[in-house]
Amino acid sequence: MKDFQVNPDLLEERMLCPFDQEELTNLLDGGKQSTEERRRLEKYFLQSGAGKPDVDIDALGAVERYEYDIKKSTELFKIAQDNNDGAMANIKAMVGGGTGAALMPDGTPLGLHFIMFIPTLMGQGTLDQQAEWLGRAWNMEIIGTYAQTELGHGTFIRGLETTATYDERTQEFILHSPTITAYKWWPGGLGKTANHAVVMAQLITKGQKRGPHPFFVQLRDEDTHVPLKGIKIGEIGPKLGMNSNDNGYLGFESHRIPRKHLLMKNAQILVPLSMCVGFVFVGQNLWQAYSHIQQDIEEGNFDKLPELHALSSGLKALVTQECADAMDSLRRACGGHGFMCNSNLPRLWGLVTASCTYEGENTVLQLQVARFVMKCLDQDQSKPLPESMKYLRARDSSSTCTTIRGLVLLFQTTARNMALKAQLALKANEKTASHKAYAWNQTTVQLSLAALATVRAHVVSEFATAVENPSISEPLRNILRDLFELLALAWIQRFSGDFLQYGGAQAVQISWVQERILVLLAQIRPIAVSVVDAFDIPDEALKSTLGSYDGRVYERMLEAAMRGPLNEKDVPDAFHKYLKPMMQSNL
Amino acid sequence: MKDFQVNPDLLEERMLCPFDQEELTNLLDGGKQSTEERRRLEKYFLQSGAGKPDVDIDALGAVERYEYDIKKSTELFKIAQDNNDGAMANIKAMVGGGTGAALMPDGTPLGLHFIMFIPTLMGQGTLDQQAEWLGRAWNMEIIGTYAQTELGHGTFIRGLETTATYDERTQEFILHSPTITAYKWWPGGLGKTANHAVVMAQLITKGQKRGPHPFFVQLRDEDTHVPLKGIKIGEIGPKLGMNSNDNGYLGFESHRIPRKHLLMKNAQILVPLSMCVGFVFVGQNLWQAYSHIQQDIEEGNFDKLPELHALSSGLKALVTQECADAMDSLRRACGGHGFMCNSNLPRLWGLVTASCTYEGENTVLQLQVARFVMKCLDQDQSKPLPESMKYLRARDSSSTCTTIRGLVLLFQTTARNMALKAQLALKANEKTASHKAYAWNQTTVQLSLAALATVRAHVVSEFATAVENPSISEPLRNILRDLFELLALAWIQRFSGDFLQYGGAQAVQISWVQERILVLLAQIRPIAVSVVDAFDIPDEALKSTLGSYDGRVYERMLEAAMRGPLNEKDVPDAFHKYLKPMMQSNL
Repeated sequence: MKDFQVNPDLLEERMLCPFDQEELTNLLDGGKQSTEERRRLEKYFLQSGAGKPDVDIDALGAVERYEYDIKKSTELFKIAQDNNDGAMANIKAMVGGGTGAALMPDGTPLGLHFIMFIPTLMGQGTLDQQAEWLGRAWNMEIIGTYAQTELGHGTFIRGLETTATYDERTQEFILHSPTITAYKWWPGGLGKTANHAVVMAQLITKGQKRGPHPFFVQLRDEDTHVPLKGIKIGEIGPKLGMNSNDNGYLGFESHRIPRKHLLMKNAQILVPLSMCVGFVFVGQNLWQAYSHIQQDIEEGNFDKLPELHALSSGLKALVTQECADAMDSLRRACGGHGFMCNSNLPRLWGLVTASCTYEGENTVLQLQVARFVMKCLDQDQSKPLPESMKYLRARDSSSTCTTIRGLVLLFQTTARNMALKAQLALKANEKTASHKAYAWNQTTVQLSLAALATVRAHVVSEFATAVENPSISEPLRNILRDLFELLALAWIQRFSGDFLQYGGAQAVQISWVQERILVLLAQIRPIAVSVVDAFDIPDEALKSTLGSYDGRVYERMLEAAMRGPLNEKDVPDAFHKYLKPMMQSNL
Repeated sequence: MKDFQVNPDLLEERMLCPFDQEELTNLLDGGKQSTEERRRLEKYFLQSGAGKPDVDIDALGAVERYEYDIKKSTELFKIAQDNNDGAMANIKAMVGGGTGAALMPDGTPLGLHFIMFIPTLMGQGTLDQQAEWLGRAWNMEIIGTYAQTELGHGTFIRGLETTATYDERTQEFILHSPTITAYKWWPGGLGKTANHAVVMAQLITKGQKRGPHPFFVQLRDEDTHVPLKGIKIGEIGPKLGMNSNDNGYLGFESHRIPRKHLLMKNAQILVPLSMCVGFVFVGQNLWQAYSHIQQDIEEGNFDKLPELHALSSGLKALVTQECADAMDSLRRACGGHGFMCNSNLPRLWGLVTASCTYEGENTVLQLQVARFVMKCLDQDQSKPLPESMKYLRARDSSSTCTTIRGLVLLFQTTARNMALKAQLALKANEKTASHKAYAWNQTTVQLSLAALATVRAHVVSEFATAVENPSISEPLRNILRDLFELLALAWIQRFSGDFLQYGGAQAVQISWVQERILVLLAQIRPIAVSVVDAFDIPDEALKSTLGSYDGRVYERMLEAAMRGPLNEKDVPDAFHKYLKPMMQSNL
């Protein structure tokens, strides 16, 4: 791609930036050191030339595209491993974050090998099992994936149908898919790439079901790559996005594996995570909490685990949904150009919206939050509440939209009263329902709404704390305060009904909020480019004709179009084959 | 595809259908005769075998796919023309509606030829021009498209940059693209298919700009298909959806056309249109209004044109956005399966969300409604308001959510007060702004919100009238009343802030609405399959593994996956080329 001069309108905006962009970049990365490490990795990969667009993957057929993805992934892993010092950090960067997006924007068929297969062996395998398999996996002598979800079963893990029946005589497990809904479905790399997998299956011994357990399973011959006997395997087809993963299906026909292939260490927790400024701060705090709690767990203290689980579930549900919605608004705001693949907005939206579903469907996660909040409300008054839930015992007081703490209070009051309303509905339903679970199901609408209000209150509270952080300079704090206020007021406007009904807000306040948002937008507009520049995402990562640093939107769109494979020939073959005969047939 | 037995759960639901489905189908089609005609066309095309899925277009590369689309389109037009009696109706069905979706789910490169090129020649060409070009276009001796939108200019037609300068000496127009933002961008079929186009360009005579005019322009040699000298033409690349259109770009380098190629008759209006039950009724009424007004116009009476323009603009903006949002919720409700192309939800969402942008970007259209409403509010009290706006002069009165007419009143009261608030803000801004247009721009947020409330009130009012239609049977009316109530209450819940602030609704009413929605959902749930069956969309049209008549979701998903081109070989070529060498390199 040509190097364009920066659009003069953008240059002018950047000259007016009223804060230190590097300070914001460091804050978003989680410190100066993290920024430097991130940049080192980006430089390392991007200088290899691997991030340059060489073909338009959207114009490739599925078979060509898979071949391209594999070629590129194997080249990249070679580059990552060549740097012996930082191989681990390199691979981590390769499969995630901005660098990963620059290198393989739609994912890689080898991703799950590093994201799930190796970590699962490390977390769930005994020392003996690790000794046997981990080295080979790390050297990529074997390629693995993680097969849990089934055609008919996603979130409800206890419902998994694949069975692993123990045969005492031969000391083997017999893996079997009793129905087609038992077929494993979705694992990345499973379709054509992996020759091994960790497979979750219902353990059956002495005729008794023992619940889902993980098994180490060879899928294909290591030399010929042909699927083993009793193993039905294939790729599941084109998707709305993420088409660089050969997501696969997998069925077993009484397939036998050795007894020692049952992975036997305890379970571990993995948390995904976020994007915009407010969410970044919450994310950083959550990550800190996760590290602390991880330490507590190793010392045998499980007290804070439910709170971490609830907050991370709720944030995942809120952040992925907000990001998907915001990205779609952004795309529509770009008119027809946002619909083009070369804007990269369709692909980014595809990635984000997929995250609303995978690793915990959002409604299910909201209900996890609700369950935690209901437990807190039911808890004996003599026992203290977890830190993030203390506001559940506060009293209503008049709150204001004009101060940071006033806004936090308003969100917490609203969340508390919505939670109390959901609790009332739940108790009422429990009186008439034949089973507690039915009552819960009847109340899920109110519970979900209360959960989302809870998570919004948490985000606003954490963002407020970040704005008040004394180590931030005054110019940057002014910017962050405006962004904080905009997020809070935009939510108040969007959910004005909730704030009017449950937060004690008055109609006149909502009107004020609407007008104040217009003032804030006018205030933030001139620094928007500077804030976005501080996100420090290179063009190679964003891969968007509409979002490049130089702002030369039209030049980039036209150039991208001209590069298309359909434009290689002025006259397509189809003209001679079909169009011309048709056009002449009526002469 | 195999014929599956219907899922027994569905059979049971259908047996309990409490109304006459054929009655609802006829109501939705706009009468018994329309249903019959629609079915005749569906049968005609589908029995030709043309609707059968032969290849997975999502797995084709761009070049293969274009060839496939052209091959299929030319075959279909042959079938359509073979039936001499109904050629016109056949082609209309082919490029639109359910039949079109069954035959060419992502559009056809020949679509614009029939949808825009021929109608524009008919509407804007003189009799002489029609005599010269229309017969050849109808016989497909020439293929055309309609080129208006430019790389830098969409909705703002007066901003078009392409010029057509009249050269008196040679009696020719010189078509020219002075900048790259002047390049024509988006027209379907322009990239590789069309050899002619109607091109909108700024007419310049005697050095004066005369505004945008339509020109008939030859683009490619009719025999060799090579672009003519002075014409730069190509395809714009992959998109989020609708990839069966070779959307194109087009630039002119002082390209000369004869004087008589300026199309010289008056302008005409074209209206697009909708999906769900409520919207269908509004659509039918709008179509009737359109026909009446069309007649008025031919008699020289333009009085009702502004009302039709405002309502059709507003409905387009509301309906496309609601459909896109609903479709995305539906997709997410299907979890990962909804993300698969074979569910057809990604493609359908792509089609619907594209319509939020094209033929009038939705925000622009909302502001057209707002302008009409503001004019009505400003109008002298002695002059009557248009029928649909009469409620703007009503007085606030207490309204109820428990009756059909109470709901209509509540929506109208809310819309009126939001319009009055926007009017106040507009007047206040006009006092301080240096120009009326700036004041309008400063008020666009309030104006858009008021416009959407206006359109929602209109939809609720029209739906209420349809429910009260005396020719509907009692069992069907019960169903429609429930659907009406659900739509109205769902909107009240979603925009509860508006109804609390501007509709005089009380918090206790909003709580009641929330509970009532749960009751309605429980009531509608058992007849949902029957209602959807009555939409009478054949499987071949819906093309969804998740939405087939037999409900055999898992069988269909698995079968679709197995058919994929990546599954033709058990061992992909990439294994031998890349994977195996990598896996053995560390041994």
